[in-house]
Amino acid sequence: MRNRQIVMTTRPIGVPKVEDFSMVTENVPEIGDQMVLVGAQYLSVDPYMRGRMRDRPSYAPPFALNTVVPAAGVGVVRQSKHPGFSEGDVVLGPLGWQEAALIEGAHLQRIDPAWAPISTALGVLGMPGLTAYVGMIHVAEVQLGQTVVVSAAAGAVGLVACQVGKILGARVIGIAGSEAKTQALVNEFGVDGAINYRTDDVDDSLGRLCPEGVDVYFDNVGGVITDILFEHLSVHARVAVCGQISGYNLETTRQMPDMLWRLVSHRIRVEGFLVGDFADQRQEALLRLSHWYHDGKLISREHIVDGLERLPEAFLGLFSGENIGKQLVRV
Amino acid sequence: MRNRQIVMTTRPIGVPKVEDFSMVTENVPEIGDQMVLVGAQYLSVDPYMRGRMRDRPSYAPPFALNTVVPAAGVGVVRQSKHPGFSEGDVVLGPLGWQEAALIEGAHLQRIDPAWAPISTALGVLGMPGLTAYVGMIHVAEVQLGQTVVVSAAAGAVGLVACQVGKILGARVIGIAGSEAKTQALVNEFGVDGAINYRTDDVDDSLGRLCPEGVDVYFDNVGGVITDILFEHLSVHARVAVCGQISGYNLETTRQMPDMLWRLVSHRIRVEGFLVGDFADQRQEALLRLSHWYHDGKLISREHIVDGLERLPEAFLGLFSGENIGKQLVRV
Repeated sequence: MRNRQIVMTTRPIGVPKVEDFSMVTENVPEIGDQMVLVGAQYLSVDPYMRGRMRDRPSYAPPFALNTVVPAAGVGVVRQSKHPGFSEGDVVLGPLGWQEAALIEGAHLQRIDPAWAPISTALGVLGMPGLTAYVGMIHVAEVQLGQTVVVSAAAGAVGLVACQVGKILGARVIGIAGSEAKTQALVNEFGVDGAINYRTDDVDDSLGRLCPEGVDVYFDNVGGVITDILFEHLSVHARVAVCGQISGYNLETTRQMPDMLWRLVSHRIRVEGFLVGDFADQRQEALLRLSHWYHDGKLISREHIVDGLERLPEAFLGLFSGENIGKQLVRV
Repeated sequence: MRNRQIVMTTRPIGVPKVEDFSMVTENVPEIGDQMVLVGAQYLSVDPYMRGRMRDRPSYAPPFALNTVVPAAGVGVVRQSKHPGFSEGDVVLGPLGWQEAALIEGAHLQRIDPAWAPISTALGVLGMPGLTAYVGMIHVAEVQLGQTVVVSAAAGAVGLVACQVGKILGARVIGIAGSEAKTQALVNEFGVDGAINYRTDDVDDSLGRLCPEGVDVYFDNVGGVITDILFEHLSVHARVAVCGQISGYNLETTRQMPDMLWRLVSHRIRVEGFLVGDFADQRQEALLRLSHWYHDGKLISREHIVDGLERLPEAFLGLFSGENIGKQLVRV
């Protein structure tokens, strides 16, 4: 059986280009014991993947050149030599950017298609949803009535973080990069205010929308927006540092204003986190997210493009800010 | 009765000078109801006072010009119109830089001179000791076997932080600014290694002394030393930000390397704190510090200069790094 794959042929320098990737066609190897052959339905593009395209140590090893780009996906079992899976099962797993993935059954999780659209296993009921949940609840410890600011608020994680903030009874202000996004945040997702960082003065807007200061900042972007945010943090504020997308394409370390004295004078906690460290919270978080989703309190929003060949373009779109909600490719 | 006082006549710009202060002589006002007249024995100089010499908002109001400089002190009651205090009692309170202080009894605490030298109420068994205790135990959550680095390790707070680290079973590395200090840290206070930031390459020394990385950084200094420290923090490291003495005399905001992505990739928590927020821990902390002190596990070290007129000079000494341990003036 022939299998189309997207491979990385050049490590991107600065902003990735579609030319850093190529499509190749390979034969799917013979299925071995404990293995499952999965036909991809939805494949994920996520900002964290940019870091793994660099050849330098981080919390996970770098992607290899000229092999399929690793990524999460949801698909249907076509053939199984693992006792836990049968043909037709819908599964979530590390499928990679390819049409067909041969994967050890131990790395797959079954998805119930009657529970929610299967793509949500990559979005609100998957890694981005869990990230927002643990960041807001376990890292930032958002409390009723507090003022929360979320950056990249219209992204896959940010949109869930905003909604979790509202569910927790916080005042939520979202920062995003287009009028379409700020409108959606306020009109569809119920946030209390939104700032378009490309057209609004972020400092002035924060002063106006958060006159008592910001109690929690859920940071997906870093850079100058975060520099400004630090000036608005209230006493005992918490910053959950989830992502730094503004810096993922930088080749040198940026300088930022020294904010450490403010951490003392305002007793601020700044904490970076990775969702992988919260495996013990995963089950409870998924139950709650599902509950909110079925109650209509947590809305799923996806930006789906069709065609395996469009994966590099969809990935690049994360950095130009094209998507509202979870960016996915339907194969 | 005549009372000599030190007042601030000019708000310091940059590094404070002795000329920013003057000695004045006033009459002690008539003692009123609930008031206590205290004769100063030891008066404190502390780095945090620099911030309050500026006319700008912070966690406490700025010092006023041409009035006695507020500061903690230990003294003896000369006259009391408060039922809780009698002539001859030794007390701790906000005496200010003056020979005689007229203070509401409610602001004083009795000190038992049979328990420990009374000056320790301003040092290991006072605010600096409590600061080190809550920073190491409640903020940094130092655990057995972890590697802890303390900056300004030979200062009033740092020296207690180092010793608390050893008591908790951590490996402790101190950073200080002279050979006399690094020698004292290793030979008298039992730290596992010391770095002289004026003569050693801090980056190389940290790499050599902490090959597995730094699990806890107790920061008293900020600035370039802290910039380097961030590069050595291990996964799940905690930074307790206690002070930023390298920046207290700066008139503009310094730029520092953006370390926020490292907080994510290494899941690091950076938290500023003020000892005043831990009032509920004060009693237990003092009991433990006293216990360690009487067991010989916590050594008190003080740098005492004589004469009220030398208060400005002793205060300035904090910034040139003259003192080992708690800097005090004996009146």
